[in-house]
Amino acid sequence: MPKCPVTGLESFAVWYTPGVAEPSSEIHKEPDLSFVYTNRWNYVAVVSDGSRVLGLGDVGPEAALPVMEGKALLFKYLGGVDAFPLCVRAEDPDEIVEFLKCIEPTFGGINLEDISKPKCFYVLEEARRRLNIPVWHDDQQGTATVVLAGLMNALKIVGKKMDEISVAIIGVGAANTRTAIVLMKAGVKAGNIVMVDSKGILHPGRRDIEEKKDVERYKWKFCVETNAEGKTGGIPEALEGADVCISMARPGPGVIKPEWVSRMADDAIVFACANPTPEIWPWDAKEAGARIVATGRSDFPNQVNNSLGFPGIFRGVLDVRARTISDDMCIVAAKALAEFAEERGIHEDYIIPRMDEWEVYPKVAVACALEAIKEGIARIKLSKQELWERAVTIIRNARESLHALIERGLIKPIPASA
Amino acid sequence: MPKCPVTGLESFAVWYTPGVAEPSSEIHKEPDLSFVYTNRWNYVAVVSDGSRVLGLGDVGPEAALPVMEGKALLFKYLGGVDAFPLCVRAEDPDEIVEFLKCIEPTFGGINLEDISKPKCFYVLEEARRRLNIPVWHDDQQGTATVVLAGLMNALKIVGKKMDEISVAIIGVGAANTRTAIVLMKAGVKAGNIVMVDSKGILHPGRRDIEEKKDVERYKWKFCVETNAEGKTGGIPEALEGADVCISMARPGPGVIKPEWVSRMADDAIVFACANPTPEIWPWDAKEAGARIVATGRSDFPNQVNNSLGFPGIFRGVLDVRARTISDDMCIVAAKALAEFAEERGIHEDYIIPRMDEWEVYPKVAVACALEAIKEGIARIKLSKQELWERAVTIIRNARESLHALIERGLIKPIPASA
Repeated sequence: MPKCPVTGLESFAVWYTPGVAEPSSEIHKEPDLSFVYTNRWNYVAVVSDGSRVLGLGDVGPEAALPVMEGKALLFKYLGGVDAFPLCVRAEDPDEIVEFLKCIEPTFGGINLEDISKPKCFYVLEEARRRLNIPVWHDDQQGTATVVLAGLMNALKIVGKKMDEISVAIIGVGAANTRTAIVLMKAGVKAGNIVMVDSKGILHPGRRDIEEKKDVERYKWKFCVETNAEGKTGGIPEALEGADVCISMARPGPGVIKPEWVSRMADDAIVFACANPTPEIWPWDAKEAGARIVATGRSDFPNQVNNSLGFPGIFRGVLDVRARTISDDMCIVAAKALAEFAEERGIHEDYIIPRMDEWEVYPKVAVACALEAIKEGIARIKLSKQELWERAVTIIRNARESLHALIERGLIKPIPASA
Repeated sequence: MPKCPVTGLESFAVWYTPGVAEPSSEIHKEPDLSFVYTNRWNYVAVVSDGSRVLGLGDVGPEAALPVMEGKALLFKYLGGVDAFPLCVRAEDPDEIVEFLKCIEPTFGGINLEDISKPKCFYVLEEARRRLNIPVWHDDQQGTATVVLAGLMNALKIVGKKMDEISVAIIGVGAANTRTAIVLMKAGVKAGNIVMVDSKGILHPGRRDIEEKKDVERYKWKFCVETNAEGKTGGIPEALEGADVCISMARPGPGVIKPEWVSRMADDAIVFACANPTPEIWPWDAKEAGARIVATGRSDFPNQVNNSLGFPGIFRGVLDVRARTISDDMCIVAAKALAEFAEERGIHEDYIIPRMDEWEVYPKVAVACALEAIKEGIARIKLSKQELWERAVTIIRNARESLHALIERGLIKPIPASA
């Protein structure tokens, strides 16, 4: 839907020719004015090659389109962001990077989605390096941000400190790879992290990973830098004595056994985030001694849900026209999420906000925007108050617009059969 | 703006996870279902590299964005098409073609715009050859279609026939190149066309063009195939005795002199389409003996305006999910435009519809869709009545939606200073 008024033919003389010549010439002189004279300030591309679509695998770009459309809907409804799905046919990671470079002039930011690993790491890093707009892979940074937020509050409840805890990370996919990196940046000691892939605990003796270290760069780095104790074995050994378990492995139950949770430290915290079924049922984990359990499911308490993060984060970076999203901005966003819940009163069954707590989005937006300004990666500076009002206004307009079209019958209700 | 209703969090379970898994798996099995289960059926990419932006030249992709946004607005308001501007940074024509191949899975059609020649010819042809969705370069086919429509009615008024007229074509840019090709397909004899570029009339002795014939493929073809009389010289010699002048050369007045028009045939027809100032003022052309004059301007009669073509043409091809837009579909669209005006009563000052005659768009849509079905390039078949109702409904919804948002104050009016 256009965002400019059309009252008749004369409107086109403003929005198209001859009116359009003036903003075009101005932008030609100063390309950053494209953020002022066009909707670039609010355009985000939701890009996927369909190589790892949630729960479905490598289904290709056409089949990824419904997912990216859904994501674009969340962007708009929760963050007021004009997100456009772009499912691309691309053979290799460099083609995706070239594609992103190609579309950069149109967008204020890029959200990568459902790209298989390890190419997703390369695409994200190359694109962050080469583009002057934020590039974000939600399956990596988004998940890491929300997990960190939950962990921050969980630690407050059990009275443990980030730089003292030991963490078992089960599964070394895109999400957990980035989660490990962000946890270290947030204060967890690398040596206190033990990671487990499908073949067991990561340690410097893992020849299978060493052999592929050019491709599995992060995995090999983890082998070398984590696990100071030199643990070997599998999930049970990793969990032994751990304060925290972060699992994004494969659907359970039964992937994590209750007796393994029993051998974790006192006041254990368990993130069992596989979908649709967590690696262990929350009640089983609790009965086995876990004090706090989070999952990926909306029907259980403590849902670790990416939708809490990206809408507000992008709202914030767009509002200051940031050039990138730094890892510190993920941490700041996590803190904002954690504080939002804390203000409402955290307890074992409420460590992170719920999606229907709408005010969380502008709060995250403001936190990210201020951090971008602080780090010197924002193109413009606004005050905290201005940022808040801007975010609230834009998000409200998105919702009211959608509701207005529904009320007028111009968007039809979901058929009863859906 | 999303097109699906959101009434609360539970809506996301339909539009995002877990609901989205089902259409995704179905599309994985049968990619063409992306036209059914996503908005692909109505997505058109408006693609430019900003290498020849109207009246401004090679200003680059950022500066092209206001123009492509304006174009997207016209697409939506006039044709109900969900057009998205994609201004791309691309060095050479192959990069643009690769880019189009890359985005094909997301779109139902592609509209190229403001790409410099000769690369625009290569991009259009390669993309038409390689993609299974319609690729259209509006500066070529769009202009040719509308000129042909005007010419059809002008000939009815003066009582001349397409296969008997002599045509002087002034300027051999993207628009006139395609116009010449379409005129020949529509019945004008190649030998009866005389074309003039900045160095004079095209003929087989033009060594400057022959030397560059690999790049200027069309131009050399015109040298060989047109101008059976073997005329030489410039614009005055080309106009001598011509029934029709089609000029898209450079802003006038003074590019075409009245005394040259005087030497055209009786009942001369002059298209003087340079913007913002025609090559000759209409009153000067008429005083010099032209019977019918068309220009590119909305403030004069007979405006040759691309906006009469592409919204309806794309509405039609999208509605039958056509695989391409053939040259014959341009001719059919031109006929539909001409007939629309004829039904309302054509005369010297009304040879083509005006943009505010809204019913012209569904009429063109139906004509193009039926032609696509006839040529076997439509993925689905609908009856004339179904096509008409569909087009009218979609276009009406677009307008009513925009007006509803304006009425509710969710889209702000143009400030008085604009």
